[in-house]
Amino acid sequence: MAAKGEDGPLNEHDTLAVCSEPDASTKEFMMQQTMLRIKDPKKSLDFYTRVLGMRLLQKLDLHSMKFSLFLLGYEPREEIPSDNAARTEWALSRKATIELTHNWGTENDEKQAYHNGNSEPRGFGHIGIAVPDVYVACKRFEELGVKFAKLPDGGKMKGLAFIQDPDGYWIEILNPHGMGAIHSL
Amino acid sequence: MAAKGEDGPLNEHDTLAVCSEPDASTKEFMMQQTMLRIKDPKKSLDFYTRVLGMRLLQKLDLHSMKFSLFLLGYEPREEIPSDNAARTEWALSRKATIELTHNWGTENDEKQAYHNGNSEPRGFGHIGIAVPDVYVACKRFEELGVKFAKLPDGGKMKGLAFIQDPDGYWIEILNPHGMGAIHSL
Repeated sequence: MAAKGEDGPLNEHDTLAVCSEPDASTKEFMMQQTMLRIKDPKKSLDFYTRVLGMRLLQKLDLHSMKFSLFLLGYEPREEIPSDNAARTEWALSRKATIELTHNWGTENDEKQAYHNGNSEPRGFGHIGIAVPDVYVACKRFEELGVKFAKLPDGGKMKGLAFIQDPDGYWIEILNPHGMGAIHSL
Repeated sequence: MAAKGEDGPLNEHDTLAVCSEPDASTKEFMMQQTMLRIKDPKKSLDFYTRVLGMRLLQKLDLHSMKFSLFLLGYEPREEIPSDNAARTEWALSRKATIELTHNWGTENDEKQAYHNGNSEPRGFGHIGIAVPDVYVACKRFEELGVKFAKLPDGGKMKGLAFIQDPDGYWIEILNPHGMGAIHSL
């Protein structure tokens, strides 16, 4: 019980002590992608474009390794290059994309399913989409038949929701404005 | 063997058929965060700031649920608001952040470890950081003692690497420029 009593948040002193200022060599580093394996690209492309409003930025078929990559993000259609190689470099240099990996044939294997990280063994939790109004967004998701892991008013954290994509991955739906009081939970 | 013969990439016709133009209501949606559970915030904060060059944008301690959230990203120091509630709303409205979740006490539990999604059961694969020069970045990572899952010249995909964070999560290190030929693999 002694060890248990010590469990708590990292204090401010230790937090500051372990954080460094960025090294000069990392100045142009960019958080480019989050990769999730998907079972069926038809279902996932439909979900991420029609439901979440992303665009397919590029599709890469890697024949020697029998998988395809689908890069998706919130980018304007008119910025997508028409040349295929240029489109690949452009897609891989956008910030905040989703890279969906399709290992060919999983969609034909009834027994195959991916793990969303929120049951044992846990690890990855979710991606999060900021929206202007969580309740308006979730009303539309409900009308579209989207599966919810948490409704906006469920649990302790009011005003934010978790939906699930076709593979069961969790997607947080949040509105940053009004979340300044989250500390008090 | 017949079903196996059919396995392949989604063709162009089907790809176009399942992708929709974004609904008007999703216009302001933004890919805001990728959440990963971490065992020890001291190790992770050191890694993501000193090694990867991110900044801690905000730390949230949720006492009633006994966990903390650390939001990190590539943002200029001078843009971080000094007011705490404003800082939370600001951090949650940045694109492409990493949200590290620390369930209090995991760092004191020798038997506890998170799953990185790249062994069974698979799911989440990695996050990806775009850098100006993969070889220069990886030379520095090697000097800093970072663990590699794939060296830049290992495997079929030359010029890109995978490193691992303190929990074992994979981080792709890529340079978008020069990746236009990836289709030929």
